[in-house]
Amino acid sequence: MKTPHLLKSLSFGKLLPRFSGSTGSSPGTISYVGKKREERVKINLIDYNAEELIEKNLTDSHQALAYKDRESVTWLNITGVHNTKIIEEVGNKFGLHPLILEDITNTTQRPKIDDYDDYLFIVLKMSYFDKENKNIIVEQVSLIINEEYVISFQERAADILEPLRERIRNNKGKIRKQGTDYLAYAIIDSIVDHYFTILEQLGEEIEDIEEALIINATPQILNHIYKLKRELIFLRKSIWPMREVVSNMQRGDYPMIKKATIIFLRDAYDHTIQVVETIETFRDMVSGMLDLYLSNVSNRMNEVMKVLTIFASIFIPLTFIAGVYGMNFEHMPELKWPWGYGFIWLVMISVAVSLLMYFKKKKWL
Amino acid sequence: MKTPHLLKSLSFGKLLPRFSGSTGSSPGTISYVGKKREERVKINLIDYNAEELIEKNLTDSHQALAYKDRESVTWLNITGVHNTKIIEEVGNKFGLHPLILEDITNTTQRPKIDDYDDYLFIVLKMSYFDKENKNIIVEQVSLIINEEYVISFQERAADILEPLRERIRNNKGKIRKQGTDYLAYAIIDSIVDHYFTILEQLGEEIEDIEEALIINATPQILNHIYKLKRELIFLRKSIWPMREVVSNMQRGDYPMIKKATIIFLRDAYDHTIQVVETIETFRDMVSGMLDLYLSNVSNRMNEVMKVLTIFASIFIPLTFIAGVYGMNFEHMPELKWPWGYGFIWLVMISVAVSLLMYFKKKKWL
Amino acid sequence: MKTPHLLKSLSFGKLLPRFSGSTGSSPGTISYVGKKREERVKINLIDYNAEELIEKNLTDSHQALAYKDRESVTWLNITGVHNTKIIEEVGNKFGLHPLILEDITNTTQRPKIDDYDDYLFIVLKMSYFDKENKNIIVEQVSLIINEEYVISFQERAADILEPLRERIRNNKGKIRKQGTDYLAYAIIDSIVDHYFTILEQLGEEIEDIEEALIINATPQILNHIYKLKRELIFLRKSIWPMREVVSNMQRGDYPMIKKATIIFLRDAYDHTIQVVETIETFRDMVSGMLDLYLSNVSNRMNEVMKVLTIFASIFIPLTFIAGVYGMNFEHMPELKWPWGYGFIWLVMISVAVSLLMYFKKKKWL
Amino acid sequence: MKTPHLLKSLSFGKLLPRFSGSTGSSPGTISYVGKKREERVKINLIDYNAEELIEKNLTDSHQALAYKDRESVTWLNITGVHNTKIIEEVGNKFGLHPLILEDITNTTQRPKIDDYDDYLFIVLKMSYFDKENKNIIVEQVSLIINEEYVISFQERAADILEPLRERIRNNKGKIRKQGTDYLAYAIIDSIVDHYFTILEQLGEEIEDIEEALIINATPQILNHIYKLKRELIFLRKSIWPMREVVSNMQRGDYPMIKKATIIFLRDAYDHTIQVVETIETFRDMVSGMLDLYLSNVSNRMNEVMKVLTIFASIFIPLTFIAGVYGMNFEHMPELKWPWGYGFIWLVMISVAVSLLMYFKKKKWL
Amino acid sequence: MKTPHLLKSLSFGKLLPRFSGSTGSSPGTISYVGKKREERVKINLIDYNAEELIEKNLTDSHQALAYKDRESVTWLNITGVHNTKIIEEVGNKFGLHPLILEDITNTTQRPKIDDYDDYLFIVLKMSYFDKENKNIIVEQVSLIINEEYVISFQERAADILEPLRERIRNNKGKIRKQGTDYLAYAIIDSIVDHYFTILEQLGEEIEDIEEALIINATPQILNHIYKLKRELIFLRKSIWPMREVVSNMQRGDYPMIKKATIIFLRDAYDHTIQVVETIETFRDMVSGMLDLYLSNVSNRMNEVMKVLTIFASIFIPLTFIAGVYGMNFEHMPELKWPWGYGFIWLVMISVAVSLLMYFKKKKWL
Repeated sequence: MKTPHLLKSLSFGKLLPRFSGSTGSSPGTISYVGKKREERVKINLIDYNAEELIEKNLTDSHQALAYKDRESVTWLNITGVHNTKIIEEVGNKFGLHPLILEDITNTTQRPKIDDYDDYLFIVLKMSYFDKENKNIIVEQVSLIINEEYVISFQERAADILEPLRERIRNNKGKIRKQGTDYLAYAIIDSIVDHYFTILEQLGEEIEDIEEALIINATPQILNHIYKLKRELIFLRKSIWPMREVVSNMQRGDYPMIKKATIIFLRDAYDHTIQVVETIETFRDMVSGMLDLYLSNVSNRMNEVMKVLTIFASIFIPLTFIAGVYGMNFEHMPELKWPWGYGFIWLVMISVAVSLLMYFKKKKWL
Repeated sequence: MKTPHLLKSLSFGKLLPRFSGSTGSSPGTISYVGKKREERVKINLIDYNAEELIEKNLTDSHQALAYKDRESVTWLNITGVHNTKIIEEVGNKFGLHPLILEDITNTTQRPKIDDYDDYLFIVLKMSYFDKENKNIIVEQVSLIINEEYVISFQERAADILEPLRERIRNNKGKIRKQGTDYLAYAIIDSIVDHYFTILEQLGEEIEDIEEALIINATPQILNHIYKLKRELIFLRKSIWPMREVVSNMQRGDYPMIKKATIIFLRDAYDHTIQVVETIETFRDMVSGMLDLYLSNVSNRMNEVMKVLTIFASIFIPLTFIAGVYGMNFEHMPELKWPWGYGFIWLVMISVAVSLLMYFKKKKWL
Repeated sequence: MKTPHLLKSLSFGKLLPRFSGSTGSSPGTISYVGKKREERVKINLIDYNAEELIEKNLTDSHQALAYKDRESVTWLNITGVHNTKIIEEVGNKFGLHPLILEDITNTTQRPKIDDYDDYLFIVLKMSYFDKENKNIIVEQVSLIINEEYVISFQERAADILEPLRERIRNNKGKIRKQGTDYLAYAIIDSIVDHYFTILEQLGEEIEDIEEALIINATPQILNHIYKLKRELIFLRKSIWPMREVVSNMQRGDYPMIKKATIIFLRDAYDHTIQVVETIETFRDMVSGMLDLYLSNVSNRMNEVMKVLTIFASIFIPLTFIAGVYGMNFEHMPELKWPWGYGFIWLVMISVAVSLLMYFKKKKWL
Repeated sequence: MKTPHLLKSLSFGKLLPRFSGSTGSSPGTISYVGKKREERVKINLIDYNAEELIEKNLTDSHQALAYKDRESVTWLNITGVHNTKIIEEVGNKFGLHPLILEDITNTTQRPKIDDYDDYLFIVLKMSYFDKENKNIIVEQVSLIINEEYVISFQERAADILEPLRERIRNNKGKIRKQGTDYLAYAIIDSIVDHYFTILEQLGEEIEDIEEALIINATPQILNHIYKLKRELIFLRKSIWPMREVVSNMQRGDYPMIKKATIIFLRDAYDHTIQVVETIETFRDMVSGMLDLYLSNVSNRMNEVMKVLTIFASIFIPLTFIAGVYGMNFEHMPELKWPWGYGFIWLVMISVAVSLLMYFKKKKWL
Repeated sequence: MKTPHLLKSLSFGKLLPRFSGSTGSSPGTISYVGKKREERVKINLIDYNAEELIEKNLTDSHQALAYKDRESVTWLNITGVHNTKIIEEVGNKFGLHPLILEDITNTTQRPKIDDYDDYLFIVLKMSYFDKENKNIIVEQVSLIINEEYVISFQERAADILEPLRERIRNNKGKIRKQGTDYLAYAIIDSIVDHYFTILEQLGEEIEDIEEALIINATPQILNHIYKLKRELIFLRKSIWPMREVVSNMQRGDYPMIKKATIIFLRDAYDHTIQVVETIETFRDMVSGMLDLYLSNVSNRMNEVMKVLTIFASIFIPLTFIAGVYGMNFEHMPELKWPWGYGFIWLVMISVAVSLLMYFKKKKWL
């Protein structure tokens, strides 16, 4: 019972957010729901086409409007949704529905895709491993997609999308030649693929626990199994509705998404399914490990019981015999026999030996 | 086994109502099914449009008819369905089908939506936390929706809808500019969102139990886990069919519900799904906690067994040795040896030490 | 292990009927499958319209034909299907398909609805509580519905349909103004609603067991839980396919059923769903109770173990000490010390006290 | 642990056939997969219409061709599929697809229906109770159905279809007036109905085990429960896909099957569903019995523990007291008291009595 | 706890591959994901029609192009996908989409079928038993199918497809007369059928464990059960999506696949379902075996407990009696009785006998 910190290492508050902030208020009310944060909101703009690329950190979302109508893909990335004023401003400038703004700031949303005719609104869950606290962090990413721009909102400056930005900057792959739909795909793909990193981490933990289980089933392992189970429950809750989102996009219901991109989305969909199935597999394995743990515990109990039983069963009769000849009766003929003492040792040894043989036969030894 | 009140604190009778009141009677018979109540029935009327607002407490449902045909939204809220006469009166005045009246007074209904051409009939389950008795209360709310009015029936004067009324009074948000369909949406949204408050409460209980489990797994915790499990079963039973109700409304099958409202209903549907999924997640976690509890109990039993085995296994052989030299045989040469007593202590100490080493090797110490 | 009768009180034979009677015989062969019965078959006829009502106990099904073609609803109720000759006679007179007659007498049928163009054939399972034997009885009710008559077959004279007959006799509600489809609905509704009575009974049993579990988990409770589980399995098996039957009827596929009745069937369908869901909830609760029981048993075992361990661990070392000074060595200096005896008591008391403190620290006391 | 034969009595090899015979060979290769058999293949021919009946045991399938085109129903039944040469011959003469022949001889097929335009090919699983070895035997029956003939292949001469043949011979029921589709139905019906015999057998076993469980939960019962579970798994595997087969036939997709027969197939479908549901119910019950068994075992362990604890806790302190006054200190004043011995008995009796009262209070006695 | 190697014998790394290789890189990036390999890539070409057959081992994929447009079926088999350069070359020469090349080299793909208009891309999982390491190996096979050629990629030179090549070489069956669609079918069929070999192996293991369980439930068996469970989880994960792939092919959506081949694919589909169902059956059985194991362990514990209780309960009272008459009180009248010693033996024997009888009655002996 020494390592409660093992279990506590997963910050529960993050996975089970406080919902109640918005209860009772008018629909469309923008109020941040999540951990208190103080960081400044970062607004990053990348505007590119096959030839050119402009990248800027804006101080005001107002500056983005200039890029909106250019013949290029505009990617506005806003890091930090706790400053509701900035979100509201963006909303006004780009003409977003109040419900969308509510969903962006309320980071307890379920992944979903909503079609608002002029633009698509997508909510995703990005998950990554926080090496400092040894936690899995699940964060909300919201996307607004239009033929001209993509606006993405994230809670913190996680570096999951950085490789994608690098690819844009260095003109790697075909991304610079494609439209906003491909950019949206690339973001989704990055997020989905990052789940594999988490799964690899968990896979290694599972291997470690399996090995540890066979050597010695300590209570700490049990807490570890419980922690794993809990993490898988929450990962599953994040990825399961994303499957639906990607499936909808890849089905071709949205005219904004071109056929060339759909082939890629189909690939992203395959990856999502793979994540879902691996999580299910891991859950099956974790439940198998729990069975293994419990049986190990009862095997150990059994062993302890056997030792106790063997000791007690052999020595209790012997002690009784010794007790008999420790009695103080005046007339106990055996006590006077010259070979009495030797004979009694013989009796005791043969009792012990026959009991040992009996236990041997029962395979307790 | 000291705190049976823990479990009893959840009033079972409420969650498992007596159904039999209406068995055998003619369909459409209006009979109240639920706890006996004495409070007076309260009839509250709010009639509003973008400019005006009239709010009144009526003594007779008859007075409501005057407002029905005005160019405004009329919201008639009836608190208390145990007075079947008043319900019948309302039914007659607004031309409601007898089956509806039966469903309103029989508060064991399952959430559902029925289309009666002239009006929609919706049954919902509202749940809130009763701070006095530390109970979750599940209550039935019935709605009649027409293009001109909304009639709502609740069992008790829970203040869940009060923030909504405030919004209407203060003309906050867009509600005063919208029709009855939006009012109906706003009521449903308030009810669904209140489930999050309950879930937050339960989430905290789960965190508390998890912490307690790691420190010490007492039988009280078990009862608490059982109580949680039971509450989740009943919450799930309430919210699951509401998912269907909101889904049907948002699908656009009812001409009464305008397109602008459907976007909001889609949002309410997302919230309902989120409630459902969080309940499922909690159930998974609670079942995980039960496993953790049971393993803790067997770990503890194992520890107790080990202590017993160590004590018994060490002292039983020693007692035997002492017993041997307590025998009264006349010819026991050892007894006469001058160093006999010291030697026997040596033997006993070495037996004890080697047993301790054996247990150390077995990792029992 | 004292009350096996608890479990046996549920007559197993009834719930698991002998199927084999009809195996191998020609399809359409009419052979009674069920408990041997001796009672005379009762043929009851009610013929009514809004104005008139004729009720007769017939001695021969032949007499029913006279009423068949009148401008009224004819309800022929046959109690007892073990007399296959009478069933065959009815079949011939009303032109029923041989497979129907087979299904009526073979009371192991699954609830279903079959459309034979001229009439509908419905099989239902009626369940009621047999107060004498404290059993749940599940019985088959078969209905033949035509625009002119309803023929119902039941196994025994259960009084579930009696309130319905009363309503017809007293012209209560709208039944006398409606056709055979409404009568069929009224029969189905009576049967479905009676499940609520059973569920209420079981709900009370669950409450009782829950309370008993917290006070003392005896093996009898386990048998009771098992009995409950078993009853729920069989109730579920009865009601589940009835959901399908009522759903089909309410969907409007059968021209015989008028639109006005469909609204009522929709209501009956809601009730059926409610029964199904309550059974599921009960099953969840019963499985929760089993967990509670098992944990209680291991808690108790744990407590027993602790008492044993405390007693053994304290007195075994003390007995050893006493044993040492019971040895008969000639040279045992301690024995001659004037304060030896007092000193040894001191040693023993301090051993006992420190062990007690150790157990206190381990929270075993 | 005395009756391993209980479990072994179910021949595992039969239920889990060797698949590998055909791996790697060309599709359509006819190779027998199953137990080695030596019996001669029996070819039985029945050719009938309403007036005439010819029945013959053929030595060569060639003789059957003469009957094929007559205005009558020809039923060719081949018992024994291990002689692949005969199967191939039949295949050639009746123009069957090589894949069909492969499926007939590979008796590990899953029940299915394939439409080969000219004929239907149906694979079924027939199950019966082998009284000699107390086994459930599952055997493959393949049917080829055409407007003119039915060819059936079975593995062994089980007498399940004998009553059907009797009915044809004696012109019982309507079978002689119907076509091949009705004959096919009659065969399927016979096979499905025979499952009820098995289920009745298993139902009785369940009742026996339930009774035995309450009296005494021996390890043999556990093996019996395991055997039951295993049999239900395999029965379910046989009947589940047959549900699909019969459902397809009764849906009217095959022009070969006339409307009059479809009514009968609907009935057979109902029976199949009933078998499936009864198996599910049995599985639920068996899993309930396992819980009951496990709890009984831990109850018993609890009882054993209590006896041990009571004995040990009472006598260990008494033995200690006796040990104290067995010490040989020179100065032990109590030993010289005239009433010392009587007094010490009093002390010991009161210790014993108060411990007994303590255990009584704890409800251990 | 002696055989951890039992569990470790299944190479975990293979079943749970490292996914992260490709995370963050551009979609369509070809990077090998899997175990490091050094073997040379083998390129095998078979070009055949009904008359001719050419078989060659190529050194460069370039040489294959010459055969592509001939009036024959060209089968290019590439063993080893770790050399990404060769894969890229093939991709360029045959005009394959970059996503395909990524999927071929990333061997963690889920089985799937993608239609790229010009060709079909199929990913399969081939599984076979590695006799050396007693492992189940799951390997990825990718197929490109066109009207003119089939390109297959495998990870290692497993000999599963060798019998198929033999059939082509020897012109056995109809394969030489068919097109590429039949070749693709033949490959899929070979792979699916090989699962039966694995299942047979596992079936034998299950039989062995069942037998071992009844004789003696050692902890090694538990590890074996766990290993089995784990293998079934991974087999299921491989075959489950293959069901979908074959189902899609057999549904006739792809014009490339001719009607004659569809009949064969339907057969392959039946086999796939059979594999899936057998795996499910095995999983059910394995979970039953786990129950059996756990109950055996607790039965054994029970038996140990009984022996302990019987020994302790009989000898502890006897030792107490002996202890009483070992006390050194001066006035103990019994000690002076001439028959005192004999009498006390009588008392002790009768205590022992009555306790034995009590245990007999309790059925502990």
